[in-house]
Amino acid sequence: MSEKPIIGITMGDPAGIGPEVVVKAVTDKKVTKICYPLVFGSYHIIFSAAKKFLKKATIRRIVWVEDVTASKDSINVLACTKFDHTKIKTGKITKLSGKVAADSVFCATQFALSDQIDALVTAPLSKKGLHLAGYDFPGHTELLAYLTATRNYAMMFVSHQYKVVLATTHLPLSEVARTLSKRKILEKLMVTQKALQRHFGIRKPKIGVCALNPHCGEEGILGSEEKKIIIPAIKIAQQKGIKASGPFSSDTIFSPRVSGDFDCILAMYHDQGLIPLKMRGLGEAVNVTVGLPIIRTSPDFGTATDIAGEGIADPKGMKNAILLAVEMVKKANPKSLLFKPTV
Amino acid sequence: MSEKPIIGITMGDPAGIGPEVVVKAVTDKKVTKICYPLVFGSYHIIFSAAKKFLKKATIRRIVWVEDVTASKDSINVLACTKFDHTKIKTGKITKLSGKVAADSVFCATQFALSDQIDALVTAPLSKKGLHLAGYDFPGHTELLAYLTATRNYAMMFVSHQYKVVLATTHLPLSEVARTLSKRKILEKLMVTQKALQRHFGIRKPKIGVCALNPHCGEEGILGSEEKKIIIPAIKIAQQKGIKASGPFSSDTIFSPRVSGDFDCILAMYHDQGLIPLKMRGLGEAVNVTVGLPIIRTSPDFGTATDIAGEGIADPKGMKNAILLAVEMVKKANPKSLLFKPTV
Repeated sequence: MSEKPIIGITMGDPAGIGPEVVVKAVTDKKVTKICYPLVFGSYHIIFSAAKKFLKKATIRRIVWVEDVTASKDSINVLACTKFDHTKIKTGKITKLSGKVAADSVFCATQFALSDQIDALVTAPLSKKGLHLAGYDFPGHTELLAYLTATRNYAMMFVSHQYKVVLATTHLPLSEVARTLSKRKILEKLMVTQKALQRHFGIRKPKIGVCALNPHCGEEGILGSEEKKIIIPAIKIAQQKGIKASGPFSSDTIFSPRVSGDFDCILAMYHDQGLIPLKMRGLGEAVNVTVGLPIIRTSPDFGTATDIAGEGIADPKGMKNAILLAVEMVKKANPKSLLFKPTV
Repeated sequence: MSEKPIIGITMGDPAGIGPEVVVKAVTDKKVTKICYPLVFGSYHIIFSAAKKFLKKATIRRIVWVEDVTASKDSINVLACTKFDHTKIKTGKITKLSGKVAADSVFCATQFALSDQIDALVTAPLSKKGLHLAGYDFPGHTELLAYLTATRNYAMMFVSHQYKVVLATTHLPLSEVARTLSKRKILEKLMVTQKALQRHFGIRKPKIGVCALNPHCGEEGILGSEEKKIIIPAIKIAQQKGIKASGPFSSDTIFSPRVSGDFDCILAMYHDQGLIPLKMRGLGEAVNVTVGLPIIRTSPDFGTATDIAGEGIADPKGMKNAILLAVEMVKKANPKSLLFKPTV
């Protein structure tokens, strides 16, 4: 690892706000001060975005990662996809836009796996675009797990106030209860502990576990999943040396008095974890895929095709994602065990 | 209504923290300055609590409401239940403690219905105590609905930041989706609009409606309840002149930039509404039963038998509940329509 880490940044779906927030974020002084940003994507797309959304910036075509620079006036691009860029229409997700977004992820992941870049930050792509291009993944997370041959992984969100991991992710609410299992919760606890040790420098992380039901199920009157699934999973985790505790009512654990006791909170479903995280506004929470053999972060917003091309997209979330990736690189503990299937 | 309103306050279950937070709250200068607090319960229980938890206070036995006073050194008690108070054990919910807690609610409700008091604030009672005493109600809300012969009512929570109404309340999470219906959402929207007009002085309230599923169901991929239930209910409500809009992702609507657009938010289930409300800590959110012919508020905590008798219970929530009741009395619009079944 060089003095300053090299952070690979995918351009995202070119029909969305990805290229805009990328060029804005990688030319931010806060970013260039602490890392070498290297954008993976299309030279033409990044060139046009820079021309449109920045006052000035030179685009540097990078072939060898040793050539990256860090300057608020230039953008390093590793051109890894070639296509007729005039066919990309701002705001319109197509098979082509989905394909080139995926190309950038494929290439950047290879560079991360071979340690040529220290971390990967992904700009938003569209599930629809992925599907149109023939890639059957619900999103980045599953795509990256596939590309890195990872079985146990989890979505973590990091804000100034909390770190939250989701036990289940993109599911209809009606399917959450039946999808939860002891095994699933245990796997998430294990992968969370490893990630906190390995990438956040926390030696003995304390993890608070949310209840599924209101009032923790109130002794079974308001649901039995606490007794049947969550408490047993916590007990097994404790036997394995994980400092997990709970379950706690989800309307209690996020109050500062309680959440302050934990390094991370395991939420049972998407909105349970995301409501408290996003209350301070978009761009505050950074998405981290934990469990991968590489460091990967991303902002908490989507392609926002409705405002693409207007120049009003806020790069704050992208910047926060890059800053967190740098922090994780610096705290990474190479001596800690690699992730391996343990359950 | 007298210059200062008379606020009836039930003592709650005497085995819990009810009497403690009541005597602390009704002798608070902020409270006595703006209302006449009148405690409904046992003279002996309130006398003992005052002796134990206050520096000094005179207990005044009230028979006629005209005799109430407001002073931080005295407590008005309307003794409406008589029993061997030595049989009440602090921290232990029993058939007796449940019965006398219920007695106070019965009596205070009669006074509220006959306009002898202007509003009702209830201290925590225990569901278990109610059940032991033979009253088959899940809690205060349903008991009060029964006592006032109210069919359509809703739980509203009011904090400095939000007003939130729940479409479903105390249910296992696995039953939420199947319990929701167009009719239920419409009824909650109607009762919410009426309450905001009648008790909060908002002439044309704007109500934001939460989605049930993550990302608003993402066009049906993550759940169909938005399309089948929530959107149609909002449309009917709009046709009836209710300024309802949505559904909004629940991890978006509570961010200040979005929630600021609404006078009230309708949450689909308990934790969806309570997580953001309680994030600032216990005692911040006041529970209001809307739809009743009387004004009723309560703090957002329970009997807390684990800390009963220790003198450490925080009366902030009780005070906030009284202050809100006074505010609602002052904003009450007697000209607005009474609640009546309209769906």
